[in-house]
Amino acid sequence: MNLKYNIKVRVFQGEPAFGPGVAELMERVERTGSLSEGCREMGMAYSKGWKIIRRAEKDLGFSLMTGNRGGSTGGSTVLTEEGKDFLRRFRSFEASIHEKAEELFKQF
Amino acid sequence: MNLKYNIKVRVFQGEPAFGPGVAELMERVERTGSLSEGCREMGMAYSKGWKIIRRAEKDLGFSLMTGNRGGSTGGSTVLTEEGKDFLRRFRSFEASIHEKAEELFKQF
Repeated sequence: MNLKYNIKVRVFQGEPAFGPGVAELMERVERTGSLSEGCREMGMAYSKGWKIIRRAEKDLGFSLMTGNRGGSTGGSTVLTEEGKDFLRRFRSFEASIHEKAEELFKQF
Repeated sequence: MNLKYNIKVRVFQGEPAFGPGVAELMERVERTGSLSEGCREMGMAYSKGWKIIRRAEKDLGFSLMTGNRGGSTGGSTVLTEEGKDFLRRFRSFEASIHEKAEELFKQF
């Protein structure tokens, strides 16, 4: 038997709205400067992308990105400083867990 | 900001079919001796419960439970020895990860 595992980490205040999907979308927005492009790369509808970002922002109580998010055809979007910082800390927490899990899984 | 986190662990061969939902359902089946009762307790349709168990069994290549699973109204169901063992190892892996995560989250 060739067992694998995966681990999904979420960080939030009320509802588990910030997880790997939002994090990946943020990274793509950071790189491309565009929410619509970030969504496109993930094969995600723009409306869905906008919705998951909005839900996470609402839960966390601060903006993750800023700029023209009014349409599916363009505008530029950048991460806020708070958004960048939160993303960095999330990825670091996630990476530490994955590192530990790698060791622990040997005992599975 | 009062941050929390959650972590979802899955163990599988091909598709991530075995996770906390299947594990919880198995525990309820073990306690009640009935898949329909286990589903009911979780507010899950019997057909859904049967489907997630079946998908996990197919992925793992062995039976997790055995007995009369033919209807929504009764029959008795017990975990197989392999199912019990896998469940126990899964919960142990999951618990170790949660324990580590608790420490790591302080640095978040």
